[in-house]
Amino acid sequence: MINIDKLYESIQAKGHVCLGLDTAAEYLPDIERKKAVNDAQAVLAFNRSLIDATYDVTGCYKVQIAYYEEMGIAGLTAYAETLKYIRSKGSLVIADIKRGDIADTATRYARAHFNGDFEADFVTLSPYMGMDSIEPWLKEAKQHGKGAFVLVRTSNPGNNDFQKLSLNDPKTEQKCLYKVVGKKMSDIADNNIGKYGYGIFGIVVGCTEKEEAAEIRKEYSNLFFLIPGYGAQGGGAAEAALLLQKGNGGVVNASRSIITAWKSEKPEGKEIDNQFAAEAARRAAIKMRDEIKGVI
Amino acid sequence: MINIDKLYESIQAKGHVCLGLDTAAEYLPDIERKKAVNDAQAVLAFNRSLIDATYDVTGCYKVQIAYYEEMGIAGLTAYAETLKYIRSKGSLVIADIKRGDIADTATRYARAHFNGDFEADFVTLSPYMGMDSIEPWLKEAKQHGKGAFVLVRTSNPGNNDFQKLSLNDPKTEQKCLYKVVGKKMSDIADNNIGKYGYGIFGIVVGCTEKEEAAEIRKEYSNLFFLIPGYGAQGGGAAEAALLLQKGNGGVVNASRSIITAWKSEKPEGKEIDNQFAAEAARRAAIKMRDEIKGVI
Repeated sequence: MINIDKLYESIQAKGHVCLGLDTAAEYLPDIERKKAVNDAQAVLAFNRSLIDATYDVTGCYKVQIAYYEEMGIAGLTAYAETLKYIRSKGSLVIADIKRGDIADTATRYARAHFNGDFEADFVTLSPYMGMDSIEPWLKEAKQHGKGAFVLVRTSNPGNNDFQKLSLNDPKTEQKCLYKVVGKKMSDIADNNIGKYGYGIFGIVVGCTEKEEAAEIRKEYSNLFFLIPGYGAQGGGAAEAALLLQKGNGGVVNASRSIITAWKSEKPEGKEIDNQFAAEAARRAAIKMRDEIKGVI
Repeated sequence: MINIDKLYESIQAKGHVCLGLDTAAEYLPDIERKKAVNDAQAVLAFNRSLIDATYDVTGCYKVQIAYYEEMGIAGLTAYAETLKYIRSKGSLVIADIKRGDIADTATRYARAHFNGDFEADFVTLSPYMGMDSIEPWLKEAKQHGKGAFVLVRTSNPGNNDFQKLSLNDPKTEQKCLYKVVGKKMSDIADNNIGKYGYGIFGIVVGCTEKEEAAEIRKEYSNLFFLIPGYGAQGGGAAEAALLLQKGNGGVVNASRSIITAWKSEKPEGKEIDNQFAAEAARRAAIKMRDEIKGVI
């Protein structure tokens, strides 16, 4: 079974939460950070505790590689081990790498993240260079049953700088940049469709642009959405639900609100450990899962 | 001294060649690959030989991280050591990472590549998400004297898919996407200028679009250019020279044509080693340097 179909089924079974393990060492309980040989190993141990506590209530995980690259080789070793641990639980993991390069370089990136030390189930991709920065990944993905989410409409404050520039171009009927990217991804999906009607590559659509959401969901009915912007960036369950269809078709990412949930539960003056943090994360993930379920 | 000024001076002294160490194991002499403990270590030894043979005739190096990520942790260790070796020679290195993410994530990427195991002098960045994927790097770059090249007009066949879409947008006077990105980078340069008149962040402009070159060079006179597309993608010294100004203002990247130059010099039926490959690379780098000097 290809990964986009596995993701669909995982969401049916475990809900829409995509738990982001964007784990900085400063998010860890003090005593855990102190007792580890280095920050990277502390982060890995923390991640494992959280994965143990949440894999049955999250549709998938997303790991933001920047947090690990920051710690150098030791950090990327923790990244690799985090991915392995998620996959050992039978859960799916999106490598949030936002790579975007062409031709032979793209193929090498694809091999890096669909195989070997950094093997993930999905990656995120950036389309600025053109479709020859996407197509080599598609070829590799088909071979290995993998998937990807291409940046289309992101949730950050700067998302209008380029994505929403109005077009007047004879080469396209689309009205702005992100719709040109979206249309190309939808065309790819038509020729590479999974058994639940979603293309093997999906797109990133933030839940911060409420007025666009219904139109986007309708326009790209054959695309699965990776949905950032929940919580910290202002989107809520109602906004996220606008980007789902028939109760599926999207995963909603949350990271800091879940992995640092322990901070608001920690008793004053008392040290807490990974187990405490993991239980708080589980409660936060269940709460988010149920909030989304409550509005679809 | 900040890195963009160092790069200007390096080009004055050593010419315009940016040697791309996009080193795949299959580019290595057979006997060197066989005798190494693994491909990553073979690549590192090969890189060191090439750096020894070329650092006095190349303006800078560029290392494409995808080739190293493909080899996992061992590959990234070789990547880190390659960067260290280049910098130990007093040469400048551009980390070709094309990262593009926002806010806290961007800051973590910047710390990853301006410090620690992966410390480089410059990075390449992708702007799709918006200017909040560039600005955090600028803040970190200023602190450390580092630099970056932002993708504007790339040299790949798909470069027109999005970069050249015609605009009709009241928010900008620019006529296509890449010019909006270029203008924003030029505005940043106005406020962050080095002693030779170039902003601390430059842009990537391929030498494959000959009819646009003079206009681009004139439009962005305060921006230093990283120029891909030489050789394999069809640009030559004449095309590259159109993107320089007053004999400086750009570095011209070539990778495979230099690092595999040994393949056309290898005597039939004879094994060759890294030393042979390095000498061939030196000749190829000097030839390219002189071709560019000959037309400016």
